[in-house]
Amino acid sequence: MPVDFQQRAVEGVRGLQPYQPGKPIDEVAREHGLDPASIIKLASNENPLGPSPKAMAAAREALSELARYPDGNAFQLKNALSARFGINTDQITLGNGSNDVLELAARTFAGPGAEVVFSEYAFAVYPIATRAVGASGVAVPARDWGHDLDAMAAAITERTRLIFVANPNNPTGTAVDRDTLVAFLERVPGHIPVVLDEAYCEYMTDPAYPDGLAMLSDYPNLIVARTFSKAWGLAGLRVGYALSSPEIADLMNRVRQPFNVDNVAQAAATAALEDKDYLAESRRVNEAGRDQLMAGFERLGLTAIPSHGNFVTVDTGRDANAVFEAMLGDGVIVRPLGGYGMPRHLRVSVGLTDENDRCIAALGRALGAAP
Amino acid sequence: MPVDFQQRAVEGVRGLQPYQPGKPIDEVAREHGLDPASIIKLASNENPLGPSPKAMAAAREALSELARYPDGNAFQLKNALSARFGINTDQITLGNGSNDVLELAARTFAGPGAEVVFSEYAFAVYPIATRAVGASGVAVPARDWGHDLDAMAAAITERTRLIFVANPNNPTGTAVDRDTLVAFLERVPGHIPVVLDEAYCEYMTDPAYPDGLAMLSDYPNLIVARTFSKAWGLAGLRVGYALSSPEIADLMNRVRQPFNVDNVAQAAATAALEDKDYLAESRRVNEAGRDQLMAGFERLGLTAIPSHGNFVTVDTGRDANAVFEAMLGDGVIVRPLGGYGMPRHLRVSVGLTDENDRCIAALGRALGAAP
Repeated sequence: MPVDFQQRAVEGVRGLQPYQPGKPIDEVAREHGLDPASIIKLASNENPLGPSPKAMAAAREALSELARYPDGNAFQLKNALSARFGINTDQITLGNGSNDVLELAARTFAGPGAEVVFSEYAFAVYPIATRAVGASGVAVPARDWGHDLDAMAAAITERTRLIFVANPNNPTGTAVDRDTLVAFLERVPGHIPVVLDEAYCEYMTDPAYPDGLAMLSDYPNLIVARTFSKAWGLAGLRVGYALSSPEIADLMNRVRQPFNVDNVAQAAATAALEDKDYLAESRRVNEAGRDQLMAGFERLGLTAIPSHGNFVTVDTGRDANAVFEAMLGDGVIVRPLGGYGMPRHLRVSVGLTDENDRCIAALGRALGAAP
Repeated sequence: MPVDFQQRAVEGVRGLQPYQPGKPIDEVAREHGLDPASIIKLASNENPLGPSPKAMAAAREALSELARYPDGNAFQLKNALSARFGINTDQITLGNGSNDVLELAARTFAGPGAEVVFSEYAFAVYPIATRAVGASGVAVPARDWGHDLDAMAAAITERTRLIFVANPNNPTGTAVDRDTLVAFLERVPGHIPVVLDEAYCEYMTDPAYPDGLAMLSDYPNLIVARTFSKAWGLAGLRVGYALSSPEIADLMNRVRQPFNVDNVAQAAATAALEDKDYLAESRRVNEAGRDQLMAGFERLGLTAIPSHGNFVTVDTGRDANAVFEAMLGDGVIVRPLGGYGMPRHLRVSVGLTDENDRCIAALGRALGAAP
């Protein structure tokens, strides 16, 4: 009789549904018989500028060392982060993207019997990382598509071992302001680690919105998670990092795989940090494109959620999956949010001006075809 | 009163000691005031040829896509592995190096209360991955520095959830032959997954030694773990893979981070698989260098363990850490094995001819200085 290995897996893995990424361009080209060059992808909140030239040059230089293991302590990259953000290198936990950092936090602090608190409509990796370690996720109902921090504080129990707060939030683009976040952190018992996921923080420019780094000294239970995948344009190389107290960083680094950030990635991220012009241009392109998308959606009679990120989430007023499929046929990849419990919404990443135009046009055609 | 976050970590993490990698060249240069170009590193079982030119070219081409997320399903790489090894793509679990694959196996099948069986003097990641998930490691005493598979089979209990077998074994270089391995697999209950870690298998050319792939169809509980970090020369890019039944691959892929193998790594590994000349040259250089090291150690009056890998482990007859430190001052990095319970042994990776010569000379000087 064949063995049922599903029953041999740990409990959390048995019901686990893996993360569903945005469709890659090559996959859409294969499935729809399209030329890859004709396809635009606004599905994964990538930087439409492409990588920083300085990062690319550094990556190219690192290629001669591919046969060598990476520096597991990432001396150069940690020093660059330390200099840039005014933190000590012993406060840093590097990750294979911030996905890795989020998972390290769950694996360090949560296990069977634990509860992990996060918001409804928040990043799909929070419940996945929670379930994978055998803990129970507590998804707190959102308010106006954003985090209801009062309700999240009220959801804390004796079994709460970790809290995820995304600011801005993906996939809705909402954000909490500084006063609200501080009031929340004051309510959270100091022994419960709070991951403040700031993957999109570089796009928040309004001073009323908080910079998690400035709060680290007041809240030793705070873990600020960031990534090079968005405003820094390096999604393909997988570099994320957590900044926290040295005590928490020490624990998370024990679980971290020693070579989780590779040679090329370390070199490119270090160089990207120096490229201030690229970051400024990324922000400028994003603000203009976000306005362009919002205006386009309005012209189509659709309601979008005002966004603090590099994407806009829009209510199509119908089954968004059908709209998504129709747009695919037009060579435009966006992200349907059925998996997030938002079956009428599409998330559209901000692209270059002509990409945004093409997306709005394709969306208009798709709506016309599925009224 | 400050919070003791150590007490808030899950039990397995509290006592966890992270993996200690080989010292990077730049670190030794900084610490000893040496020119990095004057240092040779024979400490991490890297391929001394440097990367395959075909892999480097493919990596260079992939750099233009750094701002895009990798293909989480790794269409090209999985198809290349499938074609090369005659397996189906649904049997593959990709890892960020084989370290990641080993950890995925532990996270999928072991948790608090479970036992994981491995050998004394085996790869340090087995006990680390075991402890990190809260399971108990059962380190079975070695025989002649190698796996005692009879004793390992006898160590299986009702709580055994996973077994690690390394063939060849790192850091001792020992290997088990086909008949011994088959006899072991026949004794292991079919519901207990066995990870056969073949990180160094490309260096085993004697037909008496087994190819795990050929056993997959007979043993649905078998998980063959391999890596591009050794004979394929891509340690810096972190690509490993597991080959198993589709059922086990499905479970491990649920735990896998969707983007654990990056853009550049996927492209380089796919190209490396095509470069048969590079693999043949890697094997040739390794066999010659292994003989050279064995002869050199013998001239120094030392006993080395006959090795099936790309390294030789030698008994220095004294505190190997002092020898290691003395060699560092000479610009030669090798690996002391105190952390493996082998305080008199050094592991020396096979290098190019002149690197091996320099290493033997430096070892001779170090022995003279610490007789």
